[in-house]
Amino acid sequence: MVNSQAMIRGIARPTDSKIVLLVIDGLGGLPLPETGLTELETARTPNLDRLATGAVCGLIDPVAPGITPGSAPGHLALFGYDPVGSIIGRGALEALGIDFELQPGDVAARGNFATVDGEGVITDRRAGRLSTEQNSKLTKMLDGQTIDGVEVIVHTVKEHRLAVIFRGQGLTDGVTDSDPQQAGVTPAEVAALNQAAQKTAAVANKFLAQAGKILADHHPANMVLLRGFSGKPNHATMAENYKLKAAAIASYPMYRGLARVVGMDVLPTGASFEEEIETLKQNYDKYSFFFVHIKAADEAGEDGDFAAKVAVLEQIDGALEGLTGLAPDVLVITGDHSTPARLKGHSWHPVPLLISSQWCRPDSVKSFSESACISGGLGRLPAKEIMPLAMANALKLNKFGA
Amino acid sequence: MVNSQAMIRGIARPTDSKIVLLVIDGLGGLPLPETGLTELETARTPNLDRLATGAVCGLIDPVAPGITPGSAPGHLALFGYDPVGSIIGRGALEALGIDFELQPGDVAARGNFATVDGEGVITDRRAGRLSTEQNSKLTKMLDGQTIDGVEVIVHTVKEHRLAVIFRGQGLTDGVTDSDPQQAGVTPAEVAALNQAAQKTAAVANKFLAQAGKILADHHPANMVLLRGFSGKPNHATMAENYKLKAAAIASYPMYRGLARVVGMDVLPTGASFEEEIETLKQNYDKYSFFFVHIKAADEAGEDGDFAAKVAVLEQIDGALEGLTGLAPDVLVITGDHSTPARLKGHSWHPVPLLISSQWCRPDSVKSFSESACISGGLGRLPAKEIMPLAMANALKLNKFGA
Repeated sequence: MVNSQAMIRGIARPTDSKIVLLVIDGLGGLPLPETGLTELETARTPNLDRLATGAVCGLIDPVAPGITPGSAPGHLALFGYDPVGSIIGRGALEALGIDFELQPGDVAARGNFATVDGEGVITDRRAGRLSTEQNSKLTKMLDGQTIDGVEVIVHTVKEHRLAVIFRGQGLTDGVTDSDPQQAGVTPAEVAALNQAAQKTAAVANKFLAQAGKILADHHPANMVLLRGFSGKPNHATMAENYKLKAAAIASYPMYRGLARVVGMDVLPTGASFEEEIETLKQNYDKYSFFFVHIKAADEAGEDGDFAAKVAVLEQIDGALEGLTGLAPDVLVITGDHSTPARLKGHSWHPVPLLISSQWCRPDSVKSFSESACISGGLGRLPAKEIMPLAMANALKLNKFGA
Repeated sequence: MVNSQAMIRGIARPTDSKIVLLVIDGLGGLPLPETGLTELETARTPNLDRLATGAVCGLIDPVAPGITPGSAPGHLALFGYDPVGSIIGRGALEALGIDFELQPGDVAARGNFATVDGEGVITDRRAGRLSTEQNSKLTKMLDGQTIDGVEVIVHTVKEHRLAVIFRGQGLTDGVTDSDPQQAGVTPAEVAALNQAAQKTAAVANKFLAQAGKILADHHPANMVLLRGFSGKPNHATMAENYKLKAAAIASYPMYRGLARVVGMDVLPTGASFEEEIETLKQNYDKYSFFFVHIKAADEAGEDGDFAAKVAVLEQIDGALEGLTGLAPDVLVITGDHSTPARLKGHSWHPVPLLISSQWCRPDSVKSFSESACISGGLGRLPAKEIMPLAMANALKLNKFGA
């Protein structure tokens, strides 16, 4: 049977029209009981409201109703991928998250510094959450070994977390974790799940034995645990799926990495929204699709700081004219998930969406907010349907069937 | 897994109740910037509005959000079929479009008159878009040959287009095109994709060689190109899926053909809506389901004539009482896709839908329009879900599960 991705591929056509997808990370929120208004409803956002008035609006479910997405599925859905079917392994995600460019054939694992006792039994899976600075010192001691011809690249992530990348011939990700995900037991041997993975397992075990020796005197961080062995993600690119020349403007490594997974060019940029818009302007002629990512709203939400999130949204609104001034053929504004300050974390609540284009059919929505978008012309839809709608509004899709 | 079609089959029951599906081709539109109103919102349609007030309304996506459907997927979805999974081959569609009744075992191809130079290289795939009249003369010269016991039926479609139907024993559609879909090369040999298709390929190649000889002196139409070889579509019928006795009232060949594909009786009818209603009246006792098709709204949209589309919609509204006077148990009014005059063609925008029945749960919608239907009780739904809803409102579905 023809699936919808194959259908889109069959009708996508390259044109000069421009699509800008502006992702306000963690956009959606929850109302304060005192006011009954969410962060977005509290913020003064005249520019977003003006856009919403001429646009078609709706609410998206990043993965499915009730599902709180991580950043990876949240973004893959916005890029038009089935967020469940296109999931990325833990190790590969960790590498993406530190802007490490995985190569075909690499196998990456997520690592923890951990504490083991004299018998090798794990007493703390996170080595007392050592400082990132301390992590960095120890990581340098582990990095750069060559084992059976395989280069082992070790990078600090944060606190007790590190990324370990195995680079060499004949590696595959079909191996089990050494991290038993509990204390009170010894680390597990890494085991091959199939014949082809035996070399990977052997190298990983030798690396772990070596790490134990190198770290022996560095209690509490005297061991390394590895999990989520995974290779470079192998997603079809935005060029393959949509015939788009796509660029990412994002300052955080994780989002740059996710953009790279789907074949976008990742542009160097300053971190503020104003600087991102400047990057957009400078590269506007070179691409047909831009993914612009703003992290600050999510951070304020994660901090539980309602007022800070309101301020971020007002700041974004204030800078928006720099973007709308470019008059992209299609401007999509949404988020990868909600991050209500009251929940201090990602949530499952649907996220406001607007699609502005001369070919959209405007609805009665006159402000960009959770409650207004309920009445939008797009209704409530899975986030992965945004891309076909953006493509249609950019007149980049041929008719399906005669 | 039980698919939804199988589920419906298991619970459908034949009853005397009547369903009328009125398809206003190209119904949905886009607002004029000056007024903010679509064609349907501009038209005075008191009868449609009165119906909408007592009905349950919604907006349908014929195929999926963002996808602009051709007539075939648009209608198959209205008839309850998965429009992507039930796609019809080009050749078969061409035959349907000229009211040609394909028989089991026939293989149909879409043909072009084309121009080739002295070396047989294609210089114009459309032979200068010759007149339909000229096409008709040439077609007569090609029609009626018998090759290896296979009858070759050749029919004019329009301008440079023709339909070629191969009728005989042992034919199958597993062959490649002779049309290379570009000029500057010679036509391709028709090749069998499997053992069973060798006879079809051989006959098609002999026909094409013969056509080249017959047309040699008829420059610019001195060759025929064939593509989209396909057999009679093999869709389950409306009788099989829904236990309906179904009739089509449509004056355009394409829609008559599509109705035939799903096993409807195609009734002879005049072309105007009034004449179609007369046909409905005369046959009302004989069927439990009527598909009534009106083409004029789509034509006005394709012409980019906003005012003409408004006029057509007002005309339909004016004649509607002839239909509602029959008091069908369920009246469904919708379109197979939008055809906004501003876009001069089919579009992806969702299409208004109303389902009127004594058993529907009316909503707050008081006018039949794109913007009003956003708030309808049916929400936004794929077109293929209309049939189960119509069946339910006609009390033609048993309870599912104990």
